[in-house]
Amino acid sequence: MKGNVIVGQSGGPTAAINATLSGVIRGAKKAIADGAVEKIYGMRNGIEGFMQERLVDLDATFASLSDLSLLEATPAAALGSCRKKLPAPELGNETYEKIFSLFEKYNIRYFFYIGGNDSMDTVAKLTQYAKMIGHELRAVGVPKTIDNDLAATDHTPGFGSAAKYIATTISEILCDTAVYQIPAVTIVEIMGRDAGWLTTAAALPSLHGKGVDYIYLPEVPFSVDAFIEDVKKALARHPNVTIAVSEGIRDKDGNYISASGAKDNFGHVQLTGAGRVLEALVRDRIGCKVRSIEISLMQRCAAHLASLTDIQESVQTGEAAVNFALLGRVGTMVCIKRYEGEKYETYFEALDVASIANAVRSVPLEYINEEHNGVTQACIDYLAPLIIGELPIIYKNGMPLHFYFD
Amino acid sequence: MKGNVIVGQSGGPTAAINATLSGVIRGAKKAIADGAVEKIYGMRNGIEGFMQERLVDLDATFASLSDLSLLEATPAAALGSCRKKLPAPELGNETYEKIFSLFEKYNIRYFFYIGGNDSMDTVAKLTQYAKMIGHELRAVGVPKTIDNDLAATDHTPGFGSAAKYIATTISEILCDTAVYQIPAVTIVEIMGRDAGWLTTAAALPSLHGKGVDYIYLPEVPFSVDAFIEDVKKALARHPNVTIAVSEGIRDKDGNYISASGAKDNFGHVQLTGAGRVLEALVRDRIGCKVRSIEISLMQRCAAHLASLTDIQESVQTGEAAVNFALLGRVGTMVCIKRYEGEKYETYFEALDVASIANAVRSVPLEYINEEHNGVTQACIDYLAPLIIGELPIIYKNGMPLHFYFD
Repeated sequence: MKGNVIVGQSGGPTAAINATLSGVIRGAKKAIADGAVEKIYGMRNGIEGFMQERLVDLDATFASLSDLSLLEATPAAALGSCRKKLPAPELGNETYEKIFSLFEKYNIRYFFYIGGNDSMDTVAKLTQYAKMIGHELRAVGVPKTIDNDLAATDHTPGFGSAAKYIATTISEILCDTAVYQIPAVTIVEIMGRDAGWLTTAAALPSLHGKGVDYIYLPEVPFSVDAFIEDVKKALARHPNVTIAVSEGIRDKDGNYISASGAKDNFGHVQLTGAGRVLEALVRDRIGCKVRSIEISLMQRCAAHLASLTDIQESVQTGEAAVNFALLGRVGTMVCIKRYEGEKYETYFEALDVASIANAVRSVPLEYINEEHNGVTQACIDYLAPLIIGELPIIYKNGMPLHFYFD
Repeated sequence: MKGNVIVGQSGGPTAAINATLSGVIRGAKKAIADGAVEKIYGMRNGIEGFMQERLVDLDATFASLSDLSLLEATPAAALGSCRKKLPAPELGNETYEKIFSLFEKYNIRYFFYIGGNDSMDTVAKLTQYAKMIGHELRAVGVPKTIDNDLAATDHTPGFGSAAKYIATTISEILCDTAVYQIPAVTIVEIMGRDAGWLTTAAALPSLHGKGVDYIYLPEVPFSVDAFIEDVKKALARHPNVTIAVSEGIRDKDGNYISASGAKDNFGHVQLTGAGRVLEALVRDRIGCKVRSIEISLMQRCAAHLASLTDIQESVQTGEAAVNFALLGRVGTMVCIKRYEGEKYETYFEALDVASIANAVRSVPLEYINEEHNGVTQACIDYLAPLIIGELPIIYKNGMPLHFYFD
């Protein structure tokens, strides 16, 4: 029986989530051509917008495949996002009755949700509810997160582009901080509250012979005293010391190093990140010049520096989701698997989404050095292929062009 | 009489200062071919390194012109920099005696110094001392600063690339902040302690129909109450409000908005930027979701996103410096002049460096709107040509390659 496709984006933006959306559209257009699908709907602002019936016709919006190139080079979620968590599925629940009545109204049979853990939870719950009421919904989750912390997949779409941005930015910062001869410490704070994957990307410039001095991750306990000793040792070797640190580092008791109750002189509480706390520590306990830098939002939205490998895989992940749905692999998430061996090659699997939704994948200990202040060669080998290649960007007025609905 | 060339870089890094160095090398290589010059020395870490006789042979390092491409795509000062201010020139002064004895030793006749105000001050003083002792030194200053605040030149090499980075990053941040429907304010703090030029670049994404809501510059007094009213008005129009602010904004009495004596809960003083102060103000007085972002060092070292216009002009500025020196235009700085008219075209002039060294060029009032919260079309027209074009970047391992001495 023919049915319609709907696709949504949820959770935080990445540079590649629109490439995955493009992949779903590409896959669904093929399914239309094959007679398996009638229409491709996009939901604005995820499941929240769907419940308000804020739908767009994606087949019409992207009439030809070439229209999708601009979408693939646009950062963040073009359809908009939301952070809604569905309640536990039970018969008679209003939310599910509303959602499934809309599935009926729009003849939705294929449901694709691009996101992280919470989005996978939505896919799992909709699948569970569909089974309870005997609905033929085929829901498939499509991973995305710069944090790379989803279980069962070798890596997540969006991570490679963020890692490429971090590696490039650290390379450039290393050029910048090298210009003076006076001792100076530069601390770069990188996103990752629970998983240090993004921060490990600071190790990649070492492939060009210039690297950061230390990398601190949330996976292992952070010691202020060991940190100060590390910095002193590095300053004894060379004047410009560069450090990468995850926003989520915490001490041996699990307390975040970033926690703070600082007030500025207007009397307002200031939230202080790990980088700033370490900056103040170096200033007070070593006394040399020190600065901290937050790479902030740029690491998740810098599409102008997207990894071609990441964008291509993101498109393929979206296409794979449609194919798995057509094959009846309901209640799954598309996972990227890496073949063993020297050459980087991947394939896709559809694995049970419910078990993925509740797991977190941290940086494994074999990727972290014994001193807990750097990463191993195995980690660099894992990361290196993910940032390869540059997406061709369309510039106008000297700035990248982006796709917008409306 | 034949003599040797020496070139140095001074002050803060930019994405284009190495392109200017390349231009000086290109110009000097021609002069060698023409028989006017014998050797091209580079001083490591500016005049400070010169006094320690830390010289490199640039003609040998860059044996063929094609070797210069990598240098032109490398951010920051490859020769290293310093922040030394020379004393007032007077006979018998040790510093000058040392410098001029080294000029004799290395047969230096042409002296090029790439930098901002302080570097131009060095050129002016060396010229003055040379006249005092009847030395035939031909010193020419070559401008660079992301701040665009040097007098007499239409704009400074390095500014266009920083502006392109800011315009692109703001475009991407606008995509990122648009994904949610809940009211949220994003404040982007941009470098510029005294001049707001870099912050004006936040207006450029409006050329693509998406712009920031407000731009606040140090050239006009900042009012906290007017700011809060501005934000409230924007929130009434749409949920995602984006604001660009110069680090140097100050109130009507000239006090920096960024001044702060905050302490974190380790008891350390935290330096609080303008963005963070405005963030706290919005949180306390409006209460909506709010975040601040510092673009930090990245705006001055993001060579992967350099403006081709800027890099080409930077190279030409370096070449022009050599030509002006050969013509005997001593004690000058190379200025970029823009022809009147629709089409963007420039030419070079050599103007008295002493008067430039002590002046600062602010954003003129006709570039700032009446409400003091945005810029005018004249400002956008001025900025737009400076960010046009993308420098071809050589990538290896997914990261841009950079040139390093040693």
